[in-house]
Amino acid sequence: MERTYTLTISCPDRVGIVAKVSNFLAMYGGWITEANHHSDLLVNRFFMRHEIRASSLPFGLDEFRTAFGPIAREYEMEWDISDSEIKKRVVLMCSKESHCMVDLLHRWQSGELDCEIPLVISNHETLRELVEWHGIPFHHVPVHKDNKQEAYAQVEALIDEFAADCVVLARYMQIIPPALCEKYQHRIINIHHSFLPSFAGAKPYHQAYERGVKLIGATCHYVTEELDAGPIIDQDTVRVNHRQTAEDMVRLGRDVEKSVLARGLAWHLQDRVLVYGNKTVVFN
Amino acid sequence: MERTYTLTISCPDRVGIVAKVSNFLAMYGGWITEANHHSDLLVNRFFMRHEIRASSLPFGLDEFRTAFGPIAREYEMEWDISDSEIKKRVVLMCSKESHCMVDLLHRWQSGELDCEIPLVISNHETLRELVEWHGIPFHHVPVHKDNKQEAYAQVEALIDEFAADCVVLARYMQIIPPALCEKYQHRIINIHHSFLPSFAGAKPYHQAYERGVKLIGATCHYVTEELDAGPIIDQDTVRVNHRQTAEDMVRLGRDVEKSVLARGLAWHLQDRVLVYGNKTVVFN
Amino acid sequence: MERTYTLTISCPDRVGIVAKVSNFLAMYGGWITEANHHSDLLVNRFFMRHEIRASSLPFGLDEFRTAFGPIAREYEMEWDISDSEIKKRVVLMCSKESHCMVDLLHRWQSGELDCEIPLVISNHETLRELVEWHGIPFHHVPVHKDNKQEAYAQVEALIDEFAADCVVLARYMQIIPPALCEKYQHRIINIHHSFLPSFAGAKPYHQAYERGVKLIGATCHYVTEELDAGPIIDQDTVRVNHRQTAEDMVRLGRDVEKSVLARGLAWHLQDRVLVYGNKTVVFN
Amino acid sequence: MERTYTLTISCPDRVGIVAKVSNFLAMYGGWITEANHHSDLLVNRFFMRHEIRASSLPFGLDEFRTAFGPIAREYEMEWDISDSEIKKRVVLMCSKESHCMVDLLHRWQSGELDCEIPLVISNHETLRELVEWHGIPFHHVPVHKDNKQEAYAQVEALIDEFAADCVVLARYMQIIPPALCEKYQHRIINIHHSFLPSFAGAKPYHQAYERGVKLIGATCHYVTEELDAGPIIDQDTVRVNHRQTAEDMVRLGRDVEKSVLARGLAWHLQDRVLVYGNKTVVFN
Repeated sequence: MERTYTLTISCPDRVGIVAKVSNFLAMYGGWITEANHHSDLLVNRFFMRHEIRASSLPFGLDEFRTAFGPIAREYEMEWDISDSEIKKRVVLMCSKESHCMVDLLHRWQSGELDCEIPLVISNHETLRELVEWHGIPFHHVPVHKDNKQEAYAQVEALIDEFAADCVVLARYMQIIPPALCEKYQHRIINIHHSFLPSFAGAKPYHQAYERGVKLIGATCHYVTEELDAGPIIDQDTVRVNHRQTAEDMVRLGRDVEKSVLARGLAWHLQDRVLVYGNKTVVFN
Repeated sequence: MERTYTLTISCPDRVGIVAKVSNFLAMYGGWITEANHHSDLLVNRFFMRHEIRASSLPFGLDEFRTAFGPIAREYEMEWDISDSEIKKRVVLMCSKESHCMVDLLHRWQSGELDCEIPLVISNHETLRELVEWHGIPFHHVPVHKDNKQEAYAQVEALIDEFAADCVVLARYMQIIPPALCEKYQHRIINIHHSFLPSFAGAKPYHQAYERGVKLIGATCHYVTEELDAGPIIDQDTVRVNHRQTAEDMVRLGRDVEKSVLARGLAWHLQDRVLVYGNKTVVFN
Repeated sequence: MERTYTLTISCPDRVGIVAKVSNFLAMYGGWITEANHHSDLLVNRFFMRHEIRASSLPFGLDEFRTAFGPIAREYEMEWDISDSEIKKRVVLMCSKESHCMVDLLHRWQSGELDCEIPLVISNHETLRELVEWHGIPFHHVPVHKDNKQEAYAQVEALIDEFAADCVVLARYMQIIPPALCEKYQHRIINIHHSFLPSFAGAKPYHQAYERGVKLIGATCHYVTEELDAGPIIDQDTVRVNHRQTAEDMVRLGRDVEKSVLARGLAWHLQDRVLVYGNKTVVFN
Repeated sequence: MERTYTLTISCPDRVGIVAKVSNFLAMYGGWITEANHHSDLLVNRFFMRHEIRASSLPFGLDEFRTAFGPIAREYEMEWDISDSEIKKRVVLMCSKESHCMVDLLHRWQSGELDCEIPLVISNHETLRELVEWHGIPFHHVPVHKDNKQEAYAQVEALIDEFAADCVVLARYMQIIPPALCEKYQHRIINIHHSFLPSFAGAKPYHQAYERGVKLIGATCHYVTEELDAGPIIDQDTVRVNHRQTAEDMVRLGRDVEKSVLARGLAWHLQDRVLVYGNKTVVFN
């Protein structure tokens, strides 16, 4: 893969933004390999993502930031630029269930998931061997009803020590304390095992079974203080029928969970997900 | 299509049911062209559906009922038998939106939907011309907040006068009174424009838009007293993204609504849907 | 819907195209409501589509064309601009099967399909009543093995007389002569009742049945001289199993055909489909 | 899971088969937990699958076979009965690509795929460490253009030595010699990386890219002498667009390949797949 810079912008919509940005890029010879725009006409906000060949620009990210600063200020942009050669650092958190972890670790190992995984944190020892076989350190941080404060202090310390860009709850099954949700806003990704907003909370497949639905699903979303209510990145469903028990739904649902989580994480790593309010723009 | 009888059975599960029923059929030379069984091991209930070549049996439905009665009683069966040559009578109810009506009327006209449609009832005049072009009587029964009792008395009288086997709410958009729900239990089919249980009630696409979901859906279900909570026959979803407004979702959702309703109704007409508790067994 | 201009561009890729075009638009105050770009890095070609608020520009299409001409020439663009208030004129061609016609006519009548339909041409009288009920002239042009030359001379004359922007073969089931394919290149849209390139040619559902496939599909494509080999606009599939006969597949396939054709046509009408070589870029 | 026997039958269709079989089962107190029937009315053949609680029958498989023999002969049945406690033995064959192997090995390790995997055979060493980490012997059988005969003699000897019930080509990428295809008829399962019959043979994703299709797919089928033409067990597709390169399609296709192969294999292991002619009945 050729080295690219990815520029993401969110700002109030008005005439001339694209011209301003593309002029800036053209002035320095920037070769755009992918461009996506979106105007939300209801809230009057503009979103933009550019991939630019790094070799086409005469400078690196620092100079880019300096040069682009005045434009960003003029248009009140929330913006960022990333370098494909600086891989994002993803801390995975898991519990006992292995399907999402096996899936993510294999995608990482095979090079499909373009990131570093400096650390896995789990409240159980169950997946240690799997994780370590992939050459990744595994930290066991037990969580009981009496040690939550110190447990999550330790989790926070690990996330910071390993300089995580984002945290993925790969069926972690524990509720993250509000303070951490806020500290790592839009940086903690969860997979919920239902088609939200249906069946938020515990045992969604059993809820689905009781209701007699004909499709089950999974939802990848950013974690917020309100449980299972954060901005949705991706969702998918799979058909079920009267023959499936709740346990069958759990099994069928696993395949949806892992594919939806892998897609959502990949888009996040590629800076394709822009959050505004409680929604996402996904340039995929 | 060859003439068939369709036998549907629901009863407590025990050894020997299939033998008993298939012996009975074999004794009279009954040629089974399709058979479906389901054992719900949790509630210990057995479900069965047989299509039998009418020409292979030496008698008609009345004699069948007489001959089969003792078996049915012995096994405490809820059961029914229908004749493919006696078409079910379906009363359609609609409001102003045409998409489900155009779809159902075309499927009926082209012979795909195997039923009679003796009558369409609507609370608006909007679709009269469409309905009458298909040669079907159209009754306008206006519904206001002050005339509900007499309006639904009229609706009930029409349903009974036209001897409807079932009633289809093809985006009727009015709440059916509890007494009618009970009287026509498992005989009123509704299409709800969301993936239930998400977004029950009014304006589901706008709710979906606000929540930022990435799939929208539709649900075909039997109407019960509790709004949007009856047994689900079928559901489906379609992918949306940040570019779709609530209005776009309404438009995209129409295609899901009409296909889910058409499928659900076809299965109902073919006696493929067996209800128990708040769930359905769908032998499709 | 607000009035918009849609600008579509295809040209050799190089640095500065987006800047040039967006500068041009910004210079005149053009407010972009939707923008899509695509760089095909293999063939080094760039594709772009802009929707611009008509009211934000100080001129109409003619002046736009004049003003934009020099840029287009400099960058060797194939390009076009259209006005949402000048509806495209679509001639539908059909045979005896009604499902695609009912679907398209209803989408047109309800305002979902934004075009004019000045004329329907058919080689059979079967659908006359349906078409005329929608207030559209119906021309019967019989086609036999001995009159093809004069029949298609008549078809051509009608297309030209009614100034069709595009022609839709809504299950027309006849092979269009090469000369017409060439004359109306990228302007004749067909729906083929298989997932191309599987089962090109006649009776695709029967071919699919014989092969024992587990999914059947439909393909919307531009018509070229080579049968069923033109640029694909959209495709979709639906699951089948051992219970379906070839006739069942025909019936299930109809729903896929009509939705794929409706989508493909809508995208064509919105200038979302750019053709290059035997492929399409679809900005949807 | 409770111990069950699974009885599968394929025979000429006639009146009384179900009665005969269900009588036989009822006579011995056999409790049927799942039953599936299919009549192919075109070829006049009947297919049946029963799951029976082992504890409800007074005997084991040998006595079952003896007792059922006369019925089977009378009705000219091809039939089999299996015991859920005798796990099928699956030999996996792979090459360098890991995605299907990781998926199958994890499903096996987690107990989802109910079989034994006594051996993995590969023409490369690439996946040895992965396989051995799962505790499964790995045999490297290199295949060159000059050693095919002895290589496949070795493969055959391994399959027989390890008493494989079936062989899974998990992206093995080599053509199996006709003699082996015949010897292990309906026991070798392949995953082909296209939606067959489109793009049989080599590099299907590149063929798909060249043709400009809008969906790509995968096909799980039994291997026969004719390449990529055996009975299809399952297929699925995933949407692509103009942004995907052939390499992207390879990546997206992997997820379809692994899920289709896992489903097809699971159905095969549960005796849900009955083959006749070049087609399958799949009781899923």
